[in-house]
Amino acid sequence: VPDPRDLPSIPKTVSQRLSQYLRVLQDLQRAGEETVSSRSLAARLELTAAQVRKDLTYFGQFGLPGVGYRVVGLIGEVRRILGTDRTWSVALIGAGNLGSALARYQGFAEQGFAVRAIFDCSVALVGRDLAGHSIRHMDEFEATVTDEGLDFVVLAVPIEVAQDVCDLVVGAGIRGILNFAPLRLQVPTGVHLIAVDLAIQLEQLSFLASSEGLDGERRI
Amino acid sequence: VPDPRDLPSIPKTVSQRLSQYLRVLQDLQRAGEETVSSRSLAARLELTAAQVRKDLTYFGQFGLPGVGYRVVGLIGEVRRILGTDRTWSVALIGAGNLGSALARYQGFAEQGFAVRAIFDCSVALVGRDLAGHSIRHMDEFEATVTDEGLDFVVLAVPIEVAQDVCDLVVGAGIRGILNFAPLRLQVPTGVHLIAVDLAIQLEQLSFLASSEGLDGERRI
Repeated sequence: VPDPRDLPSIPKTVSQRLSQYLRVLQDLQRAGEETVSSRSLAARLELTAAQVRKDLTYFGQFGLPGVGYRVVGLIGEVRRILGTDRTWSVALIGAGNLGSALARYQGFAEQGFAVRAIFDCSVALVGRDLAGHSIRHMDEFEATVTDEGLDFVVLAVPIEVAQDVCDLVVGAGIRGILNFAPLRLQVPTGVHLIAVDLAIQLEQLSFLASSEGLDGERRI
Repeated sequence: VPDPRDLPSIPKTVSQRLSQYLRVLQDLQRAGEETVSSRSLAARLELTAAQVRKDLTYFGQFGLPGVGYRVVGLIGEVRRILGTDRTWSVALIGAGNLGSALARYQGFAEQGFAVRAIFDCSVALVGRDLAGHSIRHMDEFEATVTDEGLDFVVLAVPIEVAQDVCDLVVGAGIRGILNFAPLRLQVPTGVHLIAVDLAIQLEQLSFLASSEGLDGERRI
């Protein structure tokens, strides 16, 4: 297996497809499939087989003629590239409706993201149980980053306080933030920020319904 | 302006970028900018200027030399392609934590999606107010589809009932579903289904943090 550091860097558009490959491969693994062809992967993701083969060569994977790709091997390789071949420690900030839903979202743990602590600023919520965690006050955040070795923060706070909370999070040394608040946060260089815009998903539905494109499921 | 029906069909990967162009253009509009270059759009989205120009030609937009693209004109064109130059009527099913958060999510209305009705199966929730709507029982769903002219459904129900609710929704004539339940729903041909997988966003953060790629904000 070639060292990924020896391979060309992976474009952002490819990285977004990697998660989609991973979900299809995980479905195949659950179904007991041992191998998969580029054609089959392509059909499930509405891509061309050539596109799939090109994507997979970015990380040194070449299908075997007449066999295709080994499902388990490819899952391991995709997780290695995505960095989810390890478990990341995540803090959730905001224990309102969205935060409560995210705290109970099973998909995070399945894919290698362990929620280690939940924070809120509301005294009414601090100390309450949420998905097995006692909600902590934000005053404890900086100490918890060190104690729990937190890697990422999921921000599910109201728009009015989002930038202040973000600044506090960055000040405490966190370098990866997933933001659900519908505003564009400012972060310094070196901090990775991903903004989740839930309306984008509805726009894709609108696009499909308007253009009457291909049917079938898509994951975003 | 060429009729979009005369243009080549837009690949799925391009349609996903259209929402990202739209958000950047809307930010520029709010900032009072009248024009934008392909280079500036590209820099904000971590794409190449050539990629942006290629994407925009899919719907017949060509920048003016030395001027770039007109922000307002491009917003209108992108919304037309996405089908959000009209308002879609949306029903939300599931008034738990996630449903409550989605009901209050301002981004939907801003982008052309109006929540017209909210449903739940729980008798304890029916009749309660949520974001200005009186929660209705699922028994009323089919009649409401006709009365309110519902286009899409956002499913925020527990995994155990998701397929049954989906079948009911499809049976009532809905042809577009945005599914937040973490399972792969089965829908007949002709029904558009988009599955929201929140772990994908964290995987992209993991990818950025692992590969130490470019900094800055990304929207997914």
